[in-house]
Order: sequence, then C-alpha cells, then structure tokens
Amino acid sequence: MTENRTPDSSRRSERSRRAIHDAALGLVGEVGYPKTTIEAIAARAGVGKQTIYRWWPSKAAVLLDAFVALGERTAGRAEGEPAPALPDTGDLAADLGTVLRATVDELNDPAFEAPTRALAAEGIVDPRLGAEFVEKLLAPSFELYAARLRAAQEAGQVRADADPRVALELLVGPVTHRWLLRTGPLTHDYADAIVDHVLRGLLPNP
Amino acid sequence: MTENRTPDSSRRSERSRRAIHDAALGLVGEVGYPKTTIEAIAARAGVGKQTIYRWWPSKAAVLLDAFVALGERTAGRAEGEPAPALPDTGDLAADLGTVLRATVDELNDPAFEAPTRALAAEGIVDPRLGAEFVEKLLAPSFELYAARLRAAQEAGQVRADADPRVALELLVGPVTHRWLLRTGPLTHDYADAIVDHVLRGLLPNP
Repeated sequence: MTENRTPDSSRRSERSRRAIHDAALGLVGEVGYPKTTIEAIAARAGVGKQTIYRWWPSKAAVLLDAFVALGERTAGRAEGEPAPALPDTGDLAADLGTVLRATVDELNDPAFEAPTRALAAEGIVDPRLGAEFVEKLLAPSFELYAARLRAAQEAGQVRADADPRVALELLVGPVTHRWLLRTGPLTHDYADAIVDHVLRGLLPNP
Repeated sequence: MTENRTPDSSRRSERSRRAIHDAALGLVGEVGYPKTTIEAIAARAGVGKQTIYRWWPSKAAVLLDAFVALGERTAGRAEGEPAPALPDTGDLAADLGTVLRATVDELNDPAFEAPTRALAAEGIVDPRLGAEFVEKLLAPSFELYAARLRAAQEAGQVRADADPRVALELLVGPVTHRWLLRTGPLTHDYADAIVDHVLRGLLPNP
C-alpha cells in the first residue's frame, strides 16, 4: 500500500498514534489497568481495534509506549529520541537537586499522576508487567543517575567505594515511596533533604 | 446474650475471627483487592456474612485488621499487644541492620508477599484505603524507627541536625521501593548496604 508512504498518510498515522496514547493514558487513570480494554481505547481514540493490534501486540505494550511518549513530550523530545544525560555543572548537589525536584514536579502533575499510579499498582501485583515497567521506564533513568554518580566518583567528589546503584536508589526510592504510599507531602524541600543526606553519605573517605 | 461471655463462646469467637482473617488474607492474595468480597471471605471462613458485619464495618477494615493480626502473630505477640521498641544495644548500625534484615525476610515471606502486594497496590490507587494503610500499618513502625534514631541522637551517635523522619525514610523507602517495583534482588546484603550508607550520612558533624 503505497499510500502509507505519502506525507498525508504519515500525518494521519501520527495523529492516530497520539490519539491512541492519549486514550490509553486517560482510561487507565480513570478506570484502572484491569478495566482498560483495547476496545475502549479504540473507541475513545476514534480508530478501529485492528489499527491498535497492527501496531501493538497487547494492552500492556500500548500503555508502556504511551508512557514513554508522554515522557518524551513533557521533556520536549522527539519520538524515539533518548533522554539526555543528567546535568553536569560540576556541582553534584545542585545537579541532583535539579533532577529530583523535576521528578517531584512530574509525580505531582495530574497528567502523570493517575495513569502512573494505575500502571505502578498493576506492576506490583503482575510480575510480567512489572518487569516491563522497570525495563522500559525505570532502568533507563537509573542508568542516567548511575552515569552522573560515576562521573562524580571520577572527579573525586564521591568516595570510590560507593556503589552508584545503591546511591541512586537512596535518591529515587524514598521519593517514589513517599509518592506511592502517600506517607507525607512530596515537596522540593523533601527532595533537597534527601539529596543533602545522601550526599553526606557519599563524601570521600577522609 | 450472656453466652458471649462464657469461655467456650470466647474461644469460638476467637476461632471465627482467626478464620476470617486467614480467609481475607488468602483471598486478597489470590484474586486481588477489588475481587475480594465479604461474601467470599465469609464462605471461605465458614461463617455467616452477618458475623463479619457485626465485627467490621467494611472489607478494608477486615483486611487491615487481618494484617495487624498477622504481624502480631509472626512476631509472637498477643492480640492488641503493641510492637516492641527497636533493639537498642548501643550499636546503631547493628540494631538497624537487624531490623532491616527482618523486614527483608518478612517481605520475602510468601505468607506476607501476595496479600501485602495486593493491599499496597490498592492503596496506591485508592487514597482512602492508602491513608488507612499508612495510619494502621506504616506509621506505628515509622515511630519506632524515629524513637531509635532520637535515642542515638541523644547519645551523640547521630548528628543533632538530622531529621529522624527523613533518615527513617532513607532506610525503609529504598527497601520497600525495590520490593514493590522489583527493581533488584531484595537481600540481607542490600539491607546492610542501605544501613551503611544512611549511617555515613548521619555521622555527627566534625
């Protein structure tokens, strides 16, 4: 089908894909993961079910893709463009503070909150979906933190025997935990307190 | 009804209560929170629905109570007996390691895992249930951590300007985060690495 290669048809595909993503995120936030169906996504997006099945093998795949696209859009990136490295101004505390405050803002953003909670909740009880959630959404961001921490290690700002993987979970874990379980207010002050505390534990050995 | 005060009737009540708790925990682990009904709990426990409604106002109340009782039983405490303080041998690192390793064992215990995941997942998408989960299950344990950290502050082992609330979330948050989202293996080594890192950040200012 040569029409698929015309500019008009590409634009139509792009619009459909975006409408499907939006429908999927909207529905999962409103009715939860178990009750979100391919049929309902198709109906809300105004496309046929077959359009969805042509592009994605499963509901989980549509949703994970929709999350990746939402993250790209929020960050102003083109589709498929990888997330940039963490800022590296030479001031590790300032750089980690910038990133963790942005994470707090994102988690508190209503466009993210309901669908992210719904997907995380399902991943908690469904190990297969959980593994995809980690692989597609969390692992890439963990790698960016680890790279920034390794750079600080090389610059002598972080003790050489610190494990970047443990250190990044000490930054991300408490913030995500507080958000998921609502154990307290999720604020910039909290992000700053976490960064301050974690960096004290990373100081080079005297 | 004077029979309610005879020893036999007390024992029967106790048996029914225990059967209802076990049924509730079993069901929520098997079918998830939304599909666990009072009817199904009653059927599995071999009691009438009215018995459940006489003791608890809602499904959430039965389940939260069942979790509290499970925690008491696992710890060998009598019903209603408050959790003891954290160990205080004077060695903060050893004491926190003991507690966090025990948390890891509990989270990895199949008797806890499925029902705890199911309840946590529902609390993530249902703010009211989430608030009860925090108040009845998490807050009491947070308070024990905070008390142990304050004792260490008074003993001069922890810097005076550290916030015990932030410090305890740095211990509990990463472990719970790793368990909930399955971002990595939840082991004693991981618990030890967290304690080691967090305590470095709590050292008294030179």
